[in-house]
Amino acid sequence: MPSSALVVLNRPSRQCQPHLAGAAPFAFHDPLSPLLSALDLGATRGDGIFETISVGNGFARALDLHLRRFAGSAARLELATPDDAVWRPAILAAIAAIDPVAEALVKTVLTRGIENDGRPTGWVYATAAPDYSQVRTDGLRVITLDRGYRHDVDLTSPWLLTGAKTLSHAINRAVIREAERRNADDVIFVSSDGWVLEGPTSSVLFRFGNRILTPVTSHGILDGTTQASIFDFARLQGFETGFEQLTAELVRTADAAWLVSSVRLAAPVRELDGIPFAIDHVLTARMNTHLASVRG
Amino acid sequence: MPSSALVVLNRPSRQCQPHLAGAAPFAFHDPLSPLLSALDLGATRGDGIFETISVGNGFARALDLHLRRFAGSAARLELATPDDAVWRPAILAAIAAIDPVAEALVKTVLTRGIENDGRPTGWVYATAAPDYSQVRTDGLRVITLDRGYRHDVDLTSPWLLTGAKTLSHAINRAVIREAERRNADDVIFVSSDGWVLEGPTSSVLFRFGNRILTPVTSHGILDGTTQASIFDFARLQGFETGFEQLTAELVRTADAAWLVSSVRLAAPVRELDGIPFAIDHVLTARMNTHLASVRG
Repeated sequence: MPSSALVVLNRPSRQCQPHLAGAAPFAFHDPLSPLLSALDLGATRGDGIFETISVGNGFARALDLHLRRFAGSAARLELATPDDAVWRPAILAAIAAIDPVAEALVKTVLTRGIENDGRPTGWVYATAAPDYSQVRTDGLRVITLDRGYRHDVDLTSPWLLTGAKTLSHAINRAVIREAERRNADDVIFVSSDGWVLEGPTSSVLFRFGNRILTPVTSHGILDGTTQASIFDFARLQGFETGFEQLTAELVRTADAAWLVSSVRLAAPVRELDGIPFAIDHVLTARMNTHLASVRG
Repeated sequence: MPSSALVVLNRPSRQCQPHLAGAAPFAFHDPLSPLLSALDLGATRGDGIFETISVGNGFARALDLHLRRFAGSAARLELATPDDAVWRPAILAAIAAIDPVAEALVKTVLTRGIENDGRPTGWVYATAAPDYSQVRTDGLRVITLDRGYRHDVDLTSPWLLTGAKTLSHAINRAVIREAERRNADDVIFVSSDGWVLEGPTSSVLFRFGNRILTPVTSHGILDGTTQASIFDFARLQGFETGFEQLTAELVRTADAAWLVSSVRLAAPVRELDGIPFAIDHVLTARMNTHLASVRG
């Protein structure tokens, strides 16, 4: 079996015509063979959405949450609604087609397709996950960087698409290059008016004593699927959890911090803006054991 | 001859290996046939750059300016430097391959390619331009919309990539949908601190008496190639031209306004935020005659 698989959807949304009348709902495609037209708006305008889903021992984790967020991103971009009845089996087929490994990932992508064609392009890509075991124990050096937007921009200016997981991700890659220049590994975005937001590909969590906090999602940030799983776990462990407005100054005084995301899971912060951070090794390990056990 | 042509570059930059050793510098490809891997970072992350160049009677207009801006965008994204010695003949070949028409366009795209592959993806697409003759005389209904960023964000936060023409363009398409909802045709962005910036795919010009003004490019906006051509023309006609800080309030008092871009050329504003604007028909027509005559 191959280490990766690509499944292409014939009709990503019931609101649109299929690409090939009478064909199967989805088909396998060689991942390295050309798939997209140079006219696809996903490629020419970053005009589309995606989700990255963790796969543990063959099980897609938090699949319902991801599919719900995928549909939410589609709505924000006024894309056709993804048809779960096709995406779900396509995701399962892609997973089933790759070598069984402890940790894999699935990426779902929906683009607006070719201009004026009216048929969105949809695919599912499954592959073995990178090995993140070291970063989960050793932690990350993180810097805060200005996201440029006020905290309330999603309310005042919804056309800026904050809170949607779009393919227009060039900034999220530029900030990682900026972090590397500053001898760091990852980034926490701060709003132009000083509120902590999220990482470029993660949610952020902070522990203050018995409380585990994350920034309020009304601040134009993604509703974190991994953050939600960790909050469920933390409450069972007796922690208080909460969504709050947090300043960069405040979070530098936290007892511990994590960047959490679907595939890397909980990565502890070991340095924030040059300030050493204590890693809560026991709690981090238990969070990751919990995340690895998430099903459904 | 076909109405469109696609040319794919074998080695978009001398800093990178070719895709196919020993192959020709570029090759034609059916525009509708798949070209890109689903793993290309242009398609999955909007991680790339583009230019759209106007072609008048077979001549690429302001080609040097566009190639210089293309290289500037590459530098901002830390992409390999496009090799003009390949891009230029590829552009000319694409133009030569399509039906001769009065107005065509060429789009150049450079993506980061497949992650860790080290070879960027580059192509040139040439096609007949849409017919913009009506909008050039009848004008546009335009609304101002918040761009979310302060005017000085390019200086404080260069990782936000303002001033680079990236493939991460989903917002620029979302604002056009917002304009349509508000019964308008196009948009002028305003910074979060109130300064007029640019359109999603155009520069903006305002006439106050004998002066033609455009916002200062240090405000994180693109250096407009069409705006530069019009300024050359306007000075020859005895106008004063200038780059200034302009508020939305001030520009609503202008004697005339235009959204200017490579392919649509100078489109007069006939309504700004619901306020009727007089169209300077004579000056607009002369601007467009000048733009249509630009060579080199």
